[in-house]
Amino acid sequence: MSLIQDLPQPLDRSLQAELQHIIDTKTKPPGSLGRLESLALQIGLIQQTTKPRIERPAMIVFAGDHGIAAEGVSSYPQEVTVQMVANFLGGGAAINAISRSVGMTLEVVDAGVATALPATDGLVDIAIRRGATRNFAHEPAMTRDEALQAIEAGASRVRHHASLGTNVIGFGEMGIANTSAAACLMSRLCGLPIDVCVGRGTGLSNEGVSHKRDVLAAALERHAKGADPVDTLATFGGFEIAMIAGAYLAAAKARMTILVDGFIATSALLVAHAISRDVLDYCVFAHASNEAGHARMLEYFDAAPLLQLDLRLGEGTGAALALPLLRAAAAFVDEMASFESAGVSDRDA
Amino acid sequence: MSLIQDLPQPLDRSLQAELQHIIDTKTKPPGSLGRLESLALQIGLIQQTTKPRIERPAMIVFAGDHGIAAEGVSSYPQEVTVQMVANFLGGGAAINAISRSVGMTLEVVDAGVATALPATDGLVDIAIRRGATRNFAHEPAMTRDEALQAIEAGASRVRHHASLGTNVIGFGEMGIANTSAAACLMSRLCGLPIDVCVGRGTGLSNEGVSHKRDVLAAALERHAKGADPVDTLATFGGFEIAMIAGAYLAAAKARMTILVDGFIATSALLVAHAISRDVLDYCVFAHASNEAGHARMLEYFDAAPLLQLDLRLGEGTGAALALPLLRAAAAFVDEMASFESAGVSDRDA
Repeated sequence: MSLIQDLPQPLDRSLQAELQHIIDTKTKPPGSLGRLESLALQIGLIQQTTKPRIERPAMIVFAGDHGIAAEGVSSYPQEVTVQMVANFLGGGAAINAISRSVGMTLEVVDAGVATALPATDGLVDIAIRRGATRNFAHEPAMTRDEALQAIEAGASRVRHHASLGTNVIGFGEMGIANTSAAACLMSRLCGLPIDVCVGRGTGLSNEGVSHKRDVLAAALERHAKGADPVDTLATFGGFEIAMIAGAYLAAAKARMTILVDGFIATSALLVAHAISRDVLDYCVFAHASNEAGHARMLEYFDAAPLLQLDLRLGEGTGAALALPLLRAAAAFVDEMASFESAGVSDRDA
Repeated sequence: MSLIQDLPQPLDRSLQAELQHIIDTKTKPPGSLGRLESLALQIGLIQQTTKPRIERPAMIVFAGDHGIAAEGVSSYPQEVTVQMVANFLGGGAAINAISRSVGMTLEVVDAGVATALPATDGLVDIAIRRGATRNFAHEPAMTRDEALQAIEAGASRVRHHASLGTNVIGFGEMGIANTSAAACLMSRLCGLPIDVCVGRGTGLSNEGVSHKRDVLAAALERHAKGADPVDTLATFGGFEIAMIAGAYLAAAKARMTILVDGFIATSALLVAHAISRDVLDYCVFAHASNEAGHARMLEYFDAAPLLQLDLRLGEGTGAALALPLLRAAAAFVDEMASFESAGVSDRDA
């Protein structure tokens, strides 16, 4: 059965009252752990337990190249994608340092990098095809079939981690020009003008942003609007974005807590959400990116991110940085005494 | 030599250019790690190294009772202080769960709890005197000599941890009615009307806040303003607040990175800062508390806290939750490749 027939379930809220009571009777003023309390409730509901645990947290970074890079929409040349994948495999990128620092298993996936990499143990090569996506300034980036294959391939990586016991997962990405893909997906899926979706990416000048905006506006003109999110994904997306969209759906289906990273990762969530709204119940919005469009994406989801650290790197770095907050949320539910068990007087006692 | 003669040094910035170059040439767009980059710079400068490390991070929770509790300014009875100290020692409070979760050594200090606790291995009993401070509605909470003793006692605990290798430290507190002490210190040391300093503490009703405000306004009327921060501390402070003030000074002197917690902990920093402005160079403001006055305290220091999680618990919980961000900051400087070492093309290459 393909993923798109086998969608996530809405969150089962039958434990909500019991979990809330446990949270409220811990030795602290009610509500005084703020966001950690709502996080603990959400994780407990996702895991269907009053003793939530963070098990084998994993980060999957999906890398892919984009035909739209030929239009000069990025500050960096396309070969940086494959160079950065080699850097991930060598352990020298930001997501390597941060994943290690927070205790998260890291997997690197070639979703469709332009240049082949030498096979190594570290790399999961499930590239949909060798070479970048097609240039959506002229033609759809992917065929519908390629997009569906990528969704399924991303989902299959999540099922692999589920089989190893992972119950918290985050998704990162690398792909020169992928903020252009994400901006077009955002414009179409949120119904927003491209001007509020375009940002500096890895660091464009004002002139660079203006050129990128013009390229993307023309591309949006060229391609007819359609109601089907898979077609929209195929038109503007990338292999890594499609795999992340599938990964969200599979992670929610597997009742994992999902750490949502920044602008690109959230654009993939727009696709997954358009396929199945229930995916949101399993998502924790990890951080607010400095990439211009991210704030509007978060508004679209009515989401208040956990962290605001002015990050604009991608790779899953913001998602990984939020993991310790999930651990702390699970820990307080599991380990704190109640007023009764600790013999502490409650209010107005 | 007493602490007040042996103050912290201003931060030595001689490594700043070298550290900034290292940060800027890591394989990421410049500035894209946002707050982690400024944090890494600060930690490197504090440790005087281009390879910052987080070593034996420690949290000290200081507990003390307040005579002002007799005025009905808290939602909880005074015996909760000693009950919560017992809970800390039993491992069942929020700061126990969170310290364990983030990998931080926890020490519990009796700075002056009203009721004696049975001696146990876990408790550091350096109470200035048994019984709460005096009720500052009527008389100064401490003598000047008691305040100085408490400052020195707090400093001595930090020196102990420095001798064990700790280079990152946070301070938490427990003390029924200590938001009243902190609000008066804030009003005097920031020169702000008491109305903007008073908040709900552990959860007062509107009537409770109004009563608390009236009690504190009358107390501020009763005690003459003086220029000496130690006298201000003695008048309104508590044993735990005085110990934390001394702990900040000793931690800065020992070139530790200091995690500043919420409203009470920041009120102690107002005292330490009035004694030595250089202490601020060593401080990381960990979080923005939901206690009403904290935002104005942060403004006073022109501080942008790392986390905003709607916490209002104290105990050092917000400080502990920020530790993983410091670890990540040190990790990226230490472990990431540079564009050159990784063979990644830089911009416009």
